[in-house]
Amino acid sequence: MTLRDRAREFVERPWVTNTILGIIIFNAITLGLGTSAAVRAHAGGLLDVIDTTVLAIFVLELALKLFAYGLRFFSSAWNIFDLVVVSFGLLPDSQGLSALRGLRVVRALRLLSVIPQMRAVVQALLDALPGMGAVIVMISIVFYVFGVMATMMYGAAFDEWFGTLGRSLYSLFQIMTLESWSMGIVRPVMEEFPFAWSFFVPFIVITAFSVLNLFIGLLVNTMQSAVEAEAEAEFEKLRDLVRSETDVVDAHVRELHEEIKALRTEIAELKGQGNG
Amino acid sequence: MTLRDRAREFVERPWVTNTILGIIIFNAITLGLGTSAAVRAHAGGLLDVIDTTVLAIFVLELALKLFAYGLRFFSSAWNIFDLVVVSFGLLPDSQGLSALRGLRVVRALRLLSVIPQMRAVVQALLDALPGMGAVIVMISIVFYVFGVMATMMYGAAFDEWFGTLGRSLYSLFQIMTLESWSMGIVRPVMEEFPFAWSFFVPFIVITAFSVLNLFIGLLVNTMQSAVEAEAEAEFEKLRDLVRSETDVVDAHVRELHEEIKALRTEIAELKGQGNG
Amino acid sequence: MTLRDRAREFVERPWVTNTILGIIIFNAITLGLGTSAAVRAHAGGLLDVIDTTVLAIFVLELALKLFAYGLRFFSSAWNIFDLVVVSFGLLPDSQGLSALRGLRVVRALRLLSVIPQMRAVVQALLDALPGMGAVIVMISIVFYVFGVMATMMYGAAFDEWFGTLGRSLYSLFQIMTLESWSMGIVRPVMEEFPFAWSFFVPFIVITAFSVLNLFIGLLVNTMQSAVEAEAEAEFEKLRDLVRSETDVVDAHVRELHEEIKALRTEIAELKGQGNG
Amino acid sequence: MTLRDRAREFVERPWVTNTILGIIIFNAITLGLGTSAAVRAHAGGLLDVIDTTVLAIFVLELALKLFAYGLRFFSSAWNIFDLVVVSFGLLPDSQGLSALRGLRVVRALRLLSVIPQMRAVVQALLDALPGMGAVIVMISIVFYVFGVMATMMYGAAFDEWFGTLGRSLYSLFQIMTLESWSMGIVRPVMEEFPFAWSFFVPFIVITAFSVLNLFIGLLVNTMQSAVEAEAEAEFEKLRDLVRSETDVVDAHVRELHEEIKALRTEIAELKGQGNG
Repeated sequence: MTLRDRAREFVERPWVTNTILGIIIFNAITLGLGTSAAVRAHAGGLLDVIDTTVLAIFVLELALKLFAYGLRFFSSAWNIFDLVVVSFGLLPDSQGLSALRGLRVVRALRLLSVIPQMRAVVQALLDALPGMGAVIVMISIVFYVFGVMATMMYGAAFDEWFGTLGRSLYSLFQIMTLESWSMGIVRPVMEEFPFAWSFFVPFIVITAFSVLNLFIGLLVNTMQSAVEAEAEAEFEKLRDLVRSETDVVDAHVRELHEEIKALRTEIAELKGQGNG
Repeated sequence: MTLRDRAREFVERPWVTNTILGIIIFNAITLGLGTSAAVRAHAGGLLDVIDTTVLAIFVLELALKLFAYGLRFFSSAWNIFDLVVVSFGLLPDSQGLSALRGLRVVRALRLLSVIPQMRAVVQALLDALPGMGAVIVMISIVFYVFGVMATMMYGAAFDEWFGTLGRSLYSLFQIMTLESWSMGIVRPVMEEFPFAWSFFVPFIVITAFSVLNLFIGLLVNTMQSAVEAEAEAEFEKLRDLVRSETDVVDAHVRELHEEIKALRTEIAELKGQGNG
Repeated sequence: MTLRDRAREFVERPWVTNTILGIIIFNAITLGLGTSAAVRAHAGGLLDVIDTTVLAIFVLELALKLFAYGLRFFSSAWNIFDLVVVSFGLLPDSQGLSALRGLRVVRALRLLSVIPQMRAVVQALLDALPGMGAVIVMISIVFYVFGVMATMMYGAAFDEWFGTLGRSLYSLFQIMTLESWSMGIVRPVMEEFPFAWSFFVPFIVITAFSVLNLFIGLLVNTMQSAVEAEAEAEFEKLRDLVRSETDVVDAHVRELHEEIKALRTEIAELKGQGNG
Repeated sequence: MTLRDRAREFVERPWVTNTILGIIIFNAITLGLGTSAAVRAHAGGLLDVIDTTVLAIFVLELALKLFAYGLRFFSSAWNIFDLVVVSFGLLPDSQGLSALRGLRVVRALRLLSVIPQMRAVVQALLDALPGMGAVIVMISIVFYVFGVMATMMYGAAFDEWFGTLGRSLYSLFQIMTLESWSMGIVRPVMEEFPFAWSFFVPFIVITAFSVLNLFIGLLVNTMQSAVEAEAEAEFEKLRDLVRSETDVVDAHVRELHEEIKALRTEIAELKGQGNG
């Protein structure tokens, strides 16, 4: 047994995975506690120590897994996910960038990758994506074209909303979610460009209709697999039924066959008798 | 017949349950009238008397049920519901806390627990919950992690929205419902943190997509039971059909069998004749 | 042929119903034109004349129908609808109440009651209602109880939103549609009552979940009828198939029967021969 | 081979269509780059040259197709779409109308008409429209009537929202999307007209319910085709099963027939023997 095999066996032992799960939950709680000013004032040092320790354990765990599985480690999307969210914790913290401090918390999302039921749910969500591919590409093209158009048409007058392509895309996303689209954006734009509604209303109708179809496609796919499984089960029941019923008839026909064979033998005998 | 049996028989008598239902409806109306300043000015004392009387009747009813059923009283979730909503009425009213006065009205929700059709509807709603369990846990984890992150990243600058974990969770709930998410929250945050959109837009997409899948799962489940029942009924019709059809053929084969048996007897006779 | 029969025959003649439809469309257009200040300035008198004439024709038509059908006139909901929307046009106009002038336009909704396809669509919408009955009653009870509670708890401090039961119900409807529920209503309320979220968030979750179930119920019902029709058609195809297949076998069995009968006759002859 | 045939062969060659697709993608990117002030400052002239060249290529391509297919060119909706979006690029640009400049970008939507998968998605979206026809007409009638009513009733007092029929229709569309319907529009209107809620709340309920039914109809249609295909496949499997099973029985019955025929021959011989 090589050192690698031993390492693999170790990281796959139930008590090891359960301990890791426990540490993840514990860390999720301490990270939550860290948002309370009162707790930070009284036990801030302790929280920092816990955080560093947990991070060290996670790094050790992933290093061990990397050693144990080698390149196969990267064949699981969950491992890559773990690696990425843990590595956020290693980013320098000193410059006081709150965004970086926030990113360290992403680590608590390991709850999704470690609990098997959560993995299943996330997997089911991701499995739905490929079927939505074509419609998502279509919506992206519509977004891009409308974004460029909005930037060219309204960018100069409404810099905050449509000044750059990025701002336009963000504003169009907001409009697609219907948030303050009229009172907040389109009515002010219409004061400058009275025909702006002929740009935004079709955009809303197109994206709403596309999202609706995305949803319907998703639903019909899910449903169809359910219906197919149902039809398959029904077919098997019917197959067994038809087989057993025809087998009964067939058995009787065979009995008849035996009967007639016996009859034939007797007639042959009779013929012999007649001849004899 | 013990006193307990008598009590049980009494609370289960139709005229008793109907009277209670009548009182609940009457109380719901008087509670509604109590919101009108004009009515309170003219008949405030009367409303108070009615309220106290109704409360007394409810307390008596529940006490009787508790006595009649003993611990089995708590085996019905509806009984516990009744007990809780009625007991809100017993909270002290003196300190003028309007929240407590408001809670007394919850008692009118007994309409849902007493009318059988309403019970069925609520039951159907609750039956849908277990199937949604895993996705709800997943959404909760996402909410918690994003809540902690938002508090750490934006809490200092936007105390009102993200100052504590509780405030962050409330704000994220608001953002999930898409209410003023952009104009009200994210745009102001982006003025301080230009990349805040890369935190909030994925949050919206993830939660919207999860809720959508929750809904699709719910729908497919409901549909599947309907389709299964349909397939079951169709299978039974087909089973009867196949059986009756093969029975006809089988009956004819059996007749044939009889015929051949008769034939065999005759041949046996013929053989005897030939021998004789 | 009585005068009644003649009247009935007249109002049912295609050219009469088509003329009425034409007048309704024409009137819908003139009512629309009447909203333009420019058109009113140039041809306001003409529009008024048209309006009065059209109204007179409608009144005459309905009077004729009433005479022709008698009390049976009221057995059709569409007739009652026509009667109501036309009678709005007879309301006095002199006091310049714009609301009454607006109500006269409702008459143009006769487009829905006169075009057969529109009738079918509206009928389909109304047919969906009974299946939603129980859930609608449940939502109404929840609305009423939460409305009374909101009035008692927040009415004093937020008179505009929750001052009376009516205002509370309107505000709760707004909150149910998620319009400005947080920034517009709940956040201001929370400044006074910090725990108001524990009243409004459950309300949103309960109503959203109920509406979702309403929708799912509606969908499953519609789907089930479609699936049932499909299953029925499949069953009939399978029935015909099974029958024709077993009929072939049965026909062969019967041929066999004939064959054996012939055999028996021959054996009987043989027996006779043997005896003879 | 005529010049037309040659032209057709040319425009249908894979490398030609792929080059056009490449140019469309390249143009979509340069149009996007054109929205950046920095890029325009450094390479504005180059972008203009690219734009003119691409436009010239597109015009040439469409001219060639027009020549190659003649009037059949217009039998494809995609060709008409290409013609329209490209021709926007030929609109005069000199007066600095940003709206016209924006319209030139629509050309990038050719991505939808040139990539086959995108064509399929758009086709699927358009295929869903006819089934929605009747409900869309109904919603249009409701919109028109409510629009005229709103203009007559609230136009004078709220000129910005309901001053003309067009403004009313826009405001009603906004209300249908639930954007700021209450805080933004209906509450201010209710301050003048206290019963305005009895106009707007039914409008919201009617349109929401209609859109819901539109969606359900769409879903059931899509689902039904899926279920029908499933049922068809199941039927074929069952047909094959029933046929093969009855064929087995039938084959045995036929064997029996042979056997009995042989028996009959033997009896005939026996009879001959007896006679002989």
